[in-house]
Amino acid sequence: MASMTTGFVDARLRAPGEDKEALFATLAARFGNRFSMSQALREQHANTLTWLMLEPPDAVLFAETTAEVADVVKLCAKARVPIIPFGTGTSLEGHVNAPFGGLSLDLSRMNRVLAVHEADLDCTVEPGVTRKALNDHLRDLGLFFPVDPGADASLGGMAATRASGTNAVRYGTMREAVLGLEAVLADGSVITTGGRARKSAAGYDLTRLLVGSEGTLGIITGLTLKLHGIPETILSGVCPFETIAGACNTTIAALQMGLPLARIELADEVQIRACNAYSHLSLPEVPTLFLEFHGTALGAREQVEAFSEIARSEGGGELVWAERPEDRNKLWQARHDAYWAARGLRPGAELLTTDVCVPISALAACVVETRADVDRLGLLAPIVGHVGDGNFHVMPVITPEERGKAREFVDRLVERALKFEGTCSGEHGIGEGKIAYLAAEHGLGVGVMTAIKKALDPLNILNPGKIFALA
Amino acid sequence: MASMTTGFVDARLRAPGEDKEALFATLAARFGNRFSMSQALREQHANTLTWLMLEPPDAVLFAETTAEVADVVKLCAKARVPIIPFGTGTSLEGHVNAPFGGLSLDLSRMNRVLAVHEADLDCTVEPGVTRKALNDHLRDLGLFFPVDPGADASLGGMAATRASGTNAVRYGTMREAVLGLEAVLADGSVITTGGRARKSAAGYDLTRLLVGSEGTLGIITGLTLKLHGIPETILSGVCPFETIAGACNTTIAALQMGLPLARIELADEVQIRACNAYSHLSLPEVPTLFLEFHGTALGAREQVEAFSEIARSEGGGELVWAERPEDRNKLWQARHDAYWAARGLRPGAELLTTDVCVPISALAACVVETRADVDRLGLLAPIVGHVGDGNFHVMPVITPEERGKAREFVDRLVERALKFEGTCSGEHGIGEGKIAYLAAEHGLGVGVMTAIKKALDPLNILNPGKIFALA
Repeated sequence: MASMTTGFVDARLRAPGEDKEALFATLAARFGNRFSMSQALREQHANTLTWLMLEPPDAVLFAETTAEVADVVKLCAKARVPIIPFGTGTSLEGHVNAPFGGLSLDLSRMNRVLAVHEADLDCTVEPGVTRKALNDHLRDLGLFFPVDPGADASLGGMAATRASGTNAVRYGTMREAVLGLEAVLADGSVITTGGRARKSAAGYDLTRLLVGSEGTLGIITGLTLKLHGIPETILSGVCPFETIAGACNTTIAALQMGLPLARIELADEVQIRACNAYSHLSLPEVPTLFLEFHGTALGAREQVEAFSEIARSEGGGELVWAERPEDRNKLWQARHDAYWAARGLRPGAELLTTDVCVPISALAACVVETRADVDRLGLLAPIVGHVGDGNFHVMPVITPEERGKAREFVDRLVERALKFEGTCSGEHGIGEGKIAYLAAEHGLGVGVMTAIKKALDPLNILNPGKIFALA
Repeated sequence: MASMTTGFVDARLRAPGEDKEALFATLAARFGNRFSMSQALREQHANTLTWLMLEPPDAVLFAETTAEVADVVKLCAKARVPIIPFGTGTSLEGHVNAPFGGLSLDLSRMNRVLAVHEADLDCTVEPGVTRKALNDHLRDLGLFFPVDPGADASLGGMAATRASGTNAVRYGTMREAVLGLEAVLADGSVITTGGRARKSAAGYDLTRLLVGSEGTLGIITGLTLKLHGIPETILSGVCPFETIAGACNTTIAALQMGLPLARIELADEVQIRACNAYSHLSLPEVPTLFLEFHGTALGAREQVEAFSEIARSEGGGELVWAERPEDRNKLWQARHDAYWAARGLRPGAELLTTDVCVPISALAACVVETRADVDRLGLLAPIVGHVGDGNFHVMPVITPEERGKAREFVDRLVERALKFEGTCSGEHGIGEGKIAYLAAEHGLGVGVMTAIKKALDPLNILNPGKIFALA
């Protein structure tokens, strides 16, 4: 609703159809076949991968430069047409949906690595570069970029959703990985935030305000990212456990003693069954930790010994090593394909993703209570988790008839996480799917978020309908 | 200036004197001797430690609870009287000055450690707890809080200024150390941001927006902080160098090879001379690195060997160890007292602090160019630096006659840092002293910061006159 007191005009009250038509005619004339209203392309750009309804945009435009993005934003602002930034469409909370129509602005062609500063362990990239493309680019330099959500997502999208993944326990999330950003604001102006210094106390932290803002405050058109040297020694393996509690308690104890684990990932027996089928593995179908240790030759072995001792005391079996790089890659590919493996458990069914994250000390209790709830409801719902962060995903694979039951399960899951002082989203973001949970988690803080949104995007044209429902 | 379009009312246009008098009468009646207008107390609360002019507040109030802070903010908002949050007064850019008068809100009596969660490596504290008090509290638990600006600052103040210090190269700054905050906003409402989970993708990162906002967006009344286990082995020492470039290049090489240095601090020969005199040391008066290695017994020794090899190739001498804890403490106390030692070089003189931070690869060039400028101008200006972050402080110790020359030197220093893609402030913040530099560094981004400020503090009552000059 337009409001005189805040000067805020919701894009839902946007200009009449003829303005939108005029805008699209202008864009078509300027961008030729980089602008499209084809149904297939529109539907592909509303890909949600989840139970969320598809809400395709009215049109799709492939931008190639920051200047183009700025021009498009200015034109859309004039016509009050929403803009939905699009990277690879692999987000899980409906971030690329267009509930109020508008233009999907596809940034995947802005895919150049602009600079790698080896000496400073940083690089500057366009937003459409994917994490795998970046790591391919870096490999020969002995460097890597650690943040790895399962999908080969674009780095712009990963920053926009504050993504993390399996390495976050050691290397942090996009919150820590982004040194600076270039972004186009709602009025078409271009700002650069942060910089290449490792730290700065110069003014408000606009970098971290944009990271995780899900395209609602600005469109990320460039990123400066922290890199890391590929460690001297990498040891990967799996460790089976008698109980899921044993696996969780091992994680807790290892972190408490300060082991610098690079990866510690849980899959329960249901997920292992799914992975065996999908990725042609033959792991024992019991709760399992996937592990990786980084360090010097000596340091990595020290970690393994310390870890093994803890695992044994919690009912863990022997660590099984993936010695060759190709075995290691196969193992982690299987972990990253957990989502697809879970879908494979029940072809044609819907999959609900969940994403709670709790303090480490609450992990075992929260997982065990959650698993009991799954069993009580008779749901098919594998559990995987970045347990080093206290973050786990339960993924009910359901028929349409089970929707109501599954939604209640998810509500209870979030309630449980908040009870343990956790969060409704460790890494997927709020999007459309978790708006109610955000309010439960942050209360008055959501008012602060909307005040910022209204100050920076008074027409509400940047990805409207995400993170919060604006009054 | 009041503006109809933004609804922004500057506190400089605050209510007439009788309103302020009425407010102070109300506060005096409610808070008794916790409210004071004594000149000594007012001047002590405008302590700037620097060349910046003292601008004492009109009154000082000692708050003891969040509810009191909220009430005081509401009363001040009604009377349009500025509020300047105060911790220990050890900031270096005039953050606690009161350029438009108002109330200094002293939070030092909110000094309780509310909870320590050993298993989660976090704690929750009130804002007046100092870093040393927290570490005293934690020691017996085998835990520590790493962020250590030289002064024994309050944790609320450290968060507000995004402080760091000698451990940041390994453990990060307040940006990384704060998991969540409680803050009182300009309308007296209380929000909690973040939480106790290690990561979250739930909405805008209000925690990191408040960290470094220098009291201009909210008053921090509680903090949840990340802790670390005290390492099994701590090795500290000093390493002398023939040249300052050799010390910088050693730092660069050690970081590039991924050595997890806990501390790597530079002091030039002028600073070493000052430290020898002030802290009764007898170090060779040459450029020197102060070092600390944390790890397992094996791991720490591995690091030392790798470091020593690099240092030798850059003209470094033998590492001299501080073996006993008391020697180690003496060494780091001397490093932390660098500011006072520098003042001691020329009793009665003024000291200008500077705080640039550049990408590591530019460190040697930036320090060497800066030192040449110091020498050309004939200034007395020791250099110390958190060189692992690319952050260094040149501290001209000057007579009133040298002010003009020193200001030009500082202008050139910031220009140089920006030329190297660095920042005007690594850790001290903007305050009153660096407003012009922030604009040079962030351009249009400053407009975004002021838009946020105006949205969240429309009356401009929270620490006005800091970070930016509002039109």
